[in-house]
Amino acid sequence: MTDTLAMLPSGIDTYRQPVVYMHEDCHICRSEGFAAETRIRVDLRDRWIIATLNVVARGQWLAVEKAALSVSAWEALKAQAGDRARFSHPEPPVSSSAIRAKAYGGRLKREDFAAIIRDTLDNRLSDLDLAAFITASAGNRLDEGETVALTREMQAAGETLDWGSEAVLDKHCVGGLPGNRTTPIVVAIVAAAGHLIPKTSSRAITSPAGTADTMEVMAPVALDAAALRKVVEAEGGCVVWGGGLNLSPADDHFIRIERPLDFDSTGQLVASVLSKKAAVGATDVLIDMPVGPTAKVRSAQAAASLGSRLSSVGQAIGLRVAIHESDGTAPVGRGIGPALEAADVLAVLRRAPGAPTDLRERALDLAGRLLDLAPGAESGEGRAQAETLLDTGAAEAKFLAICAAQGGFHEPGEAPQRIAMTAGVSGYLTAIDNRLIARIAKLAGAPRQQRAGVRLLVRVGEGVEKGQPLYEIHAETTGELAYARVYAEAHIGALTLSEDTA
Amino acid sequence: MTDTLAMLPSGIDTYRQPVVYMHEDCHICRSEGFAAETRIRVDLRDRWIIATLNVVARGQWLAVEKAALSVSAWEALKAQAGDRARFSHPEPPVSSSAIRAKAYGGRLKREDFAAIIRDTLDNRLSDLDLAAFITASAGNRLDEGETVALTREMQAAGETLDWGSEAVLDKHCVGGLPGNRTTPIVVAIVAAAGHLIPKTSSRAITSPAGTADTMEVMAPVALDAAALRKVVEAEGGCVVWGGGLNLSPADDHFIRIERPLDFDSTGQLVASVLSKKAAVGATDVLIDMPVGPTAKVRSAQAAASLGSRLSSVGQAIGLRVAIHESDGTAPVGRGIGPALEAADVLAVLRRAPGAPTDLRERALDLAGRLLDLAPGAESGEGRAQAETLLDTGAAEAKFLAICAAQGGFHEPGEAPQRIAMTAGVSGYLTAIDNRLIARIAKLAGAPRQQRAGVRLLVRVGEGVEKGQPLYEIHAETTGELAYARVYAEAHIGALTLSEDTA
Repeated sequence: MTDTLAMLPSGIDTYRQPVVYMHEDCHICRSEGFAAETRIRVDLRDRWIIATLNVVARGQWLAVEKAALSVSAWEALKAQAGDRARFSHPEPPVSSSAIRAKAYGGRLKREDFAAIIRDTLDNRLSDLDLAAFITASAGNRLDEGETVALTREMQAAGETLDWGSEAVLDKHCVGGLPGNRTTPIVVAIVAAAGHLIPKTSSRAITSPAGTADTMEVMAPVALDAAALRKVVEAEGGCVVWGGGLNLSPADDHFIRIERPLDFDSTGQLVASVLSKKAAVGATDVLIDMPVGPTAKVRSAQAAASLGSRLSSVGQAIGLRVAIHESDGTAPVGRGIGPALEAADVLAVLRRAPGAPTDLRERALDLAGRLLDLAPGAESGEGRAQAETLLDTGAAEAKFLAICAAQGGFHEPGEAPQRIAMTAGVSGYLTAIDNRLIARIAKLAGAPRQQRAGVRLLVRVGEGVEKGQPLYEIHAETTGELAYARVYAEAHIGALTLSEDTA
Repeated sequence: MTDTLAMLPSGIDTYRQPVVYMHEDCHICRSEGFAAETRIRVDLRDRWIIATLNVVARGQWLAVEKAALSVSAWEALKAQAGDRARFSHPEPPVSSSAIRAKAYGGRLKREDFAAIIRDTLDNRLSDLDLAAFITASAGNRLDEGETVALTREMQAAGETLDWGSEAVLDKHCVGGLPGNRTTPIVVAIVAAAGHLIPKTSSRAITSPAGTADTMEVMAPVALDAAALRKVVEAEGGCVVWGGGLNLSPADDHFIRIERPLDFDSTGQLVASVLSKKAAVGATDVLIDMPVGPTAKVRSAQAAASLGSRLSSVGQAIGLRVAIHESDGTAPVGRGIGPALEAADVLAVLRRAPGAPTDLRERALDLAGRLLDLAPGAESGEGRAQAETLLDTGAAEAKFLAICAAQGGFHEPGEAPQRIAMTAGVSGYLTAIDNRLIARIAKLAGAPRQQRAGVRLLVRVGEGVEKGQPLYEIHAETTGELAYARVYAEAHIGALTLSEDTA
């Protein structure tokens, strides 16, 4: 066959974008008219991918009648050196017209979303196409019916777990509040109370840490569906990474594009959250929604609008959704970044002296409301029950049992590079800008570097002296530490000090 | 310095996306926390670029303390093998927040567009960011004020030519009609009449040929501003590629993203057209707007809306804009693709027997209206004057003189691979789907392959016998020919035959 080439691994890591390297004199490039950046279908046995072509000049590392693959392309095809693959033009993605219609402000139908999700999972859509779909859905550009359709199709594209139980509880926090890592505590309390709470979490999208990133510091989170079921059957609860399952598989593709674009979409957010809740088999979902001027949800109006969309879409797909608005004006706990947040979680579960009381209170509020949602619960009793389970150490024991069931508990460590940022004036700390402080933590390396981030040393409302440390930046490398520090010094508005004139 | 590495060319062609390759054990990756797909600033002497990192595994072609660059990155830095470049985190692009605001449906100000254009030209925005900007501006999402601001900033980012003349004529066709290659004919007539018409044209965005692609078959089009001035001072007119100048330099970046996305934006279209017309020093611009169900402008309403936006934005920036609506129901001439369209142009200019009369009539209509726009013209005389200039051979002579001034005339050739597509039934040809026939020409290789495309053998309204050839597909390679043919066979609706029951 003249349309096949022997393949080799290029060893080039292009992250998730599959790339195929061909020699500029390769006969297939000539006969098929392939040029740099052409999208090419590569077939090997029963697997195929769509990859982007990079053309290698003669005299370089690639032989003329060979094709090399990027790391992710090689893995996706499960190729062996010397395998001959077939190279062809892919069919145009059928969902392009739906994305175009949405960009022009049109309304999509269920089959349009199904086509977009199918083409996304088949990698037929380029990153540009996905960026267009995300942008065309930004803000409030998906209406309720579209959001229901997207949610259903995202769920239908993956597996759905069935627990054979009347009530399966779940929670979700609409992000944007650094350090708000209540989930491991809430799961421990609710599971200790004897309820089912098979919690899946995501890694950070635009924040310095997702719950999965924080949990991963303490225990393995990349479990498959069978392993998740074993943990939940044994302990009642778990905190695992949703991306290791196949619950709403298109979501990871959307998130990969949303992350660098760094903007939100109500419809995408609702579909992302609820498709995964439905797929995990939840019946009752509590949504924690921190509201504040620099949080993800910035006003009571935005909270009401998002809450009502979550409830109505939940109802349409058969999920009971309760909304818990919380204070989103400042970070929660002290740590921002996976390991720093894990340390806060453990301090609360262990009732350590100095454990952040705001994190404890928030976790108790949420656990209490979840316990009240459970069938047969006496409404209003949940908060007291949650407090008892935490204070007796039952929640701590349950958390350690869950970690053990997930593969073993690890104590978080501290990053080697640290620097304290100090107050330029004496005064009171009146505000912390969530977005700026999160940005500093990200520049320090979070969440990619587990131990990187920010540790707050002062709470809003406290007085400080000029020169007193306000927070520490933690990093794995001096380069990242310097980069975060330069940004912090240029953005001292991350913390607002009102001068002490008393 | 520890943040520098010796560089080498990778010989990898990634089209316009700059890529830097570093070894997985490279000390800079470690100290700076660079990982695959990180965007990195590369400084070499007084030049710098922002490139995407690909990480090369140990044991491959890249030595540990070296960095390799993609072809476009190497050229942009004007690097020499062994040069030591500095690698650092780029500052976040300031225009990200403007793009985000637009995605959410906000309204942008002049300084927002200025920032987007600056970051685009500095390559600070990723392709995903640009896709988001294009998508957020799709359809009618830029209002008139935003379009004026974008147009002005696109013009201001480049050079503006000054002809010291009271009237400088120009024309532009809002694309979407295959084969509608009037420009070389119109320029020849208007220049033969003694007027200035410094015409710059683009390459194809989503069509099988742009005017620059077609003109390039016959003469060099990649002239710089000094060469353009020389041609126009000698001959009164030219037909050159606008991308070789620096007239509206951001436009090429936007087009590079618009092309694969394949969707339109009124605001982007108006800004693209008028910023270049203003920059080339035009005073009076005639816009040819073909209207038809499968043309770019599909209805009289859409034409009126686009025409009024072009006129009002033109007025705001000091350009007189006239609109010429034309029939956009079917392709013009016989050829679709650069060389095939060039053959039609030459047939009209040479008054060859069998020259396409529709192309001739359209060119005369446009040239006539342009002559009427010129200061001191007797309105209504232009059409007759244009016809005389064409029929006497004055236009042909002027066209050949322009080609000679641009670097020399070449006769178009024919592609080696050709196949005729035949009628499945007897009947009358009642319609040609512009989009489908253009798609077939593109799959055959147009515009990348100059001689590839489609030649129509039957006009709308003509009768055909079953088995009679309807059109030919032309290609450079058998692979492309087969690919276009398979698509054509699956989409016989490209040409509608109503069965002859008479």
